This record gives sequence, structure tokens and C-alpha cells, in this order.
Amino acid sequence: MPGSHMRREMTEQPEVLARLLSRRIDVGLERPAGVIIVARGSSDHAAVYGRYLLELATRRPVALAAPSLFTRYGARTDASGWLVVGVSQSGKTPEIVDVVERLRATGGHAVAITNDADSPLAAAAETVIELGAGEERAVPATKTYTAQMAAFAVLAAAFGEVPWEQGALSAVPGAVSAVLEDPDPMATLAVRWAAIDKLVVTARGWMFSAALETALKVRETALVSAQGFSVADLLHGPIAAVDAGAAVLALRADGPSATDVDEAVEALQQRGADLHLMPTVTGVPEALAPIAAAVRGQQLALELALRKGLDPDAPRGLNKVTITR
Amino acid sequence: MPGSHMRREMTEQPEVLARLLSRRIDVGLERPAGVIIVARGSSDHAAVYGRYLLELATRRPVALAAPSLFTRYGARTDASGWLVVGVSQSGKTPEIVDVVERLRATGGHAVAITNDADSPLAAAAETVIELGAGEERAVPATKTYTAQMAAFAVLAAAFGEVPWEQGALSAVPGAVSAVLEDPDPMATLAVRWAAIDKLVVTARGWMFSAALETALKVRETALVSAQGFSVADLLHGPIAAVDAGAAVLALRADGPSATDVDEAVEALQQRGADLHLMPTVTGVPEALAPIAAAVRGQQLALELALRKGLDPDAPRGLNKVTITR
Repeated sequence: MPGSHMRREMTEQPEVLARLLSRRIDVGLERPAGVIIVARGSSDHAAVYGRYLLELATRRPVALAAPSLFTRYGARTDASGWLVVGVSQSGKTPEIVDVVERLRATGGHAVAITNDADSPLAAAAETVIELGAGEERAVPATKTYTAQMAAFAVLAAAFGEVPWEQGALSAVPGAVSAVLEDPDPMATLAVRWAAIDKLVVTARGWMFSAALETALKVRETALVSAQGFSVADLLHGPIAAVDAGAAVLALRADGPSATDVDEAVEALQQRGADLHLMPTVTGVPEALAPIAAAVRGQQLALELALRKGLDPDAPRGLNKVTITR
Repeated sequence: MPGSHMRREMTEQPEVLARLLSRRIDVGLERPAGVIIVARGSSDHAAVYGRYLLELATRRPVALAAPSLFTRYGARTDASGWLVVGVSQSGKTPEIVDVVERLRATGGHAVAITNDADSPLAAAAETVIELGAGEERAVPATKTYTAQMAAFAVLAAAFGEVPWEQGALSAVPGAVSAVLEDPDPMATLAVRWAAIDKLVVTARGWMFSAALETALKVRETALVSAQGFSVADLLHGPIAAVDAGAAVLALRADGPSATDVDEAVEALQQRGADLHLMPTVTGVPEALAPIAAAVRGQQLALELALRKGLDPDAPRGLNKVTITR
């Protein structure tokens, strides 16, 4: 049945997250000089989430690596004393492994976030956070994606303050279950949007990574030209191309960015956009809500693909392992 | 006449660039612990270019700030010993000024890249690189955008090795003039693409920033849903949504990333995309080619807007100054 792998893997998320979020790790690095995250594709969106967490926890700026600087232009970036976090579901993307190895060689302390503890990425790192998500057969990453987010939460907790009360992590699997048990909002939206070929997904702050990931998931699974924007950017340029009737999905969480999203919603309504506000995630603090919000995004991608007669498990022309050298 | 401001401001670029690129600056900071760039919108794409230059020159990782971390979530990121670069054409975007002030207060050394030396951003910085581009009346940034790129080149040269031979900077205005004197390729492309409502712009390495900026310029000026991708990302996900007949603009420069772009071009041709390869920039090394390539992107945005009966000077619902607080 089309999408049966993706659907099953989505349902496995609460269990995978519960296992991962109960872990406590010791990285063996007191206070990094800075943090650099090496990732690509979906993992890069987990990295956008991770950069918020790690910047708050380490109180150091967090950089997202530009792999081509190293692999194409011979950069000799000095990461001595830095925390280097490589993120790859398979752990086999040669370019990610290469960049982590180079940064570690300059004195960086490497952490691998991967689903395969025997992968080259794991071998390149001092510390491995294994996702333990089991095999993922659908091409669109679902359980490995939210597991990467959880891994960043565990990693941040090893360094310092995290933006949630003690015990909040244990509420995440339940919040994800609640989303999985409530597929109707996104199924209904997929009916309404069955004919769209463009989509804008917008959010701010913690929810920004979920907007980027939802856009990518809808793009690669339902073949819609979806694009994610920070509401702060959207309003000052890209909104020009949002016509009356244009499909826009806004992600909002209770917290300091909520009024920014409200302002954007108002501006989008004034333009006559076909706007949908994603149901708010309940039961977890704002900083953990993007994990459950990403699952709503998966639901939309899956349902939209099915409505369009596509097989969500195997989007056209995609392979599971990113092979960029 | 529609687009008359934008057209005139585009033609001023060689002069603005020549003045700026002849400057030599002393930042008064030997070797930064790291670099953090604070920008938004178009300036954020200049920052993507600047991060390549500054990472090679300083040999330290370069981070692009997430402003909401500071202004919404109270991050107390410690930038002691770091180079902090704030980029804003007007110098008046409150959020950018706020983040630069906060980072400077922790011991960061602040540089402002702005067109207004009397702006709040300039006042917040130890060193000001004034763009000297004159008033920009068209809403889409053109001369201030390429001037920001040039400012990053001047800044990088103050820190260390730059990826060009001595004297290469003086060839940039001529390369930009050559593009301006050759509007036909983009005018012809605008005729071919007069009816598109979606566009993918793709590149890798140095040209990546020009792809992002070209997509934004086309989006806000010609109201096309344009999106920029690294070819390395495009091939492993987003390409799924590239149908037969879909408009794709590829940017290629001679250099180590050229074969990556060639591979993407082949994959896109196999899918039957309506592909156009932007004419190569001549007369400058790869690392300086994006400045002239951005001007080709401006030509496409201008011509597409005119073909669509729009006024490029005043896209719908946009203001010149970004007012995000």
C-alpha cells in the first residue's frame, strides 16, 4: 500500500523518542569555544533546531558548516576547543564524514548524531549519540528526523541550561502520540489543498526549524514547490509573491514569538492568502513543541501525497543515502 | 517609467564597487575567536557570501546569528574575542542593531556594514564599512547588495588570505560593467519565462549566495515563487518537485564546484526541466564571480517584472526599511 512504510515509521516515533530522551550523556568537554554543526538536507533542519538549543546551553555562537568550503575549497578552519556535531541518519554521507574528520584533526571535539553506531560518521567522533530508530525504509525521513531533534535536546542538556523544567522531556513522546492520534486536521487540510502546486510554510523562533522541515517534506513527498520562511523575513520581501488564494501554513507556539506569527497571519489574510494555522502543540514547553509540530508536517506530506496519487514511500528519483562526496 | 530607479541603480554598481574595493581597512583585532554575522533578508545572502570569505581569511568557523534567540528568548551568548559583523543597508533595522549591541557588550568586536554612517548600526560598532552607494530608491536592493559583498571582500582582506591574486579586486567593476552591457541573455530568458510562476535557482560553493539572492530578487520583484538551493541539497530531496518543463536557473563558475553543477544539470535535463545555464562571469576569479552573477540575477528580476506588467521599483506591499523589532 502506498505510504505504508512512512505511516508505520511515523507511529514508531513516541517509542524511539522515549528511549532517546531518557538518556543522559557526558561529552567530556566542559565549555566549548564555539559549536559547529555539520549536516545536510533534513538533518540540516534538525541542525537549525539544535543550534538554538546549543547556543542557549553553551552560551557560545553556533555555526552551521558550509561543507563545500572544506571539500571543494580547501578551508583549514581551526576548530581547536570547539564542539563539532556531525548529523547524518545513515552516517555514511561522505562529505559530512570528511568535514567532521578535518575539524576534529584541528582539535575539535566531535559528536556524531546517527542511526548507525557502526557508520563512518560514528567512527570519526569521540562521542556517538545513536538514534536507535531502527531501519527506516520510506525515503522521507520521519522517525530519524525527530530522533535527531531529541538527540540535540540530550546533547544540550549535557552542556548547561535548557529552556524547559526538569522532567519536561518525558512529556514529549505523549505530545507526539497526541498528534499521531489526531490525523484529521492535516487529512482535512490535504483535501482542501489537493490541487496546490506551491506552498509557503512560515514560523518564527523555535518553530522555524519545523517550518523548514515541513516545507521540505511536502516538497519531496507530495511534489509541491514548498518553501519555508521565518515570518520576520517573509514580511519584508518574499510575501510579495503571496497572491490571493496562495496556500500558506503558519506554525505558532505559545511564547515570545507568538505575536510575530499573529502579525504575519494578519498581513497574509489581508492579501487573501489561503491560510491555515497549524493546531498548537499541547503538553510541552515551546522549546520542545517543534518535535511534535514536525510530526504534523509529516502528516500533511503523507496525506497530500496520497491525495495526489503518489507513493509517499518512494518519491520520484530519490535515494535514501545522501551520496554527496 | 516602471523600473527606472532599479535600472539606474543597477548601472551605478561599477562605480560604487570601484570606490569600495579600493579601500583598505584595519579592524584592530588580530585573530578573532570566531565570527558571527548578523543580517536579514538580502543582507543575509551577502552574509552567506561573507561567511565563505571570512572563514577562509580568519580560519575560524563563521556563524550566522539567529536574531530571535536574542530578541525573543534572552540568549546570553558570549562573543568575547569574536568578530561581530552587522549588515543592514539602512542601518536602521532595530533587531539587527539590538543583536550587535548585545554581542558587543559581551566583548565582541563589532563591524557595521551599512549605507548610512550615521545610522544606529554604525553607532553600535567599533569599525564601520560605509557602502557609499548613495540613496537607493527602488525597493529591491541592487547596488547596496553588491556593495555589501564588496565590503565583505575588503573585510576579509584585513584578516588574512583571500582566494584571489593581488589586484584581482580592481577587475570586479569591469566584470560587472560587462554584465550590464550585455542585458540580452536575461532579457531573452525573461521572454521565454514570461509565464512562469515557479523557479528553482541552483549553484554550489561561491555561487550559492548568488543563487539565493537571485531567487529572492525574482520573488520580490517579479512575484514568482523562486527558491534557491545548493545543488548538493537539491539532488537529494527537493529535485523531486522539479517536473518536466519546470524552470530552473543554474549558476556555474569555473572552479572546484563546476563538476557538481554539471552533474546537477544532467540530472535536471533527464527530468525534462526547462533549464537555463547562466552565462559564466569572465575576467575575475571564482571567489569574486558571485558579485557579477548577482547583477545578472538583477537583470532577470527586472526583465521578468516588466514582462509581467509589474513595476520593479515598487513590489506589492513592501517597504524599504526592514522594521522587525
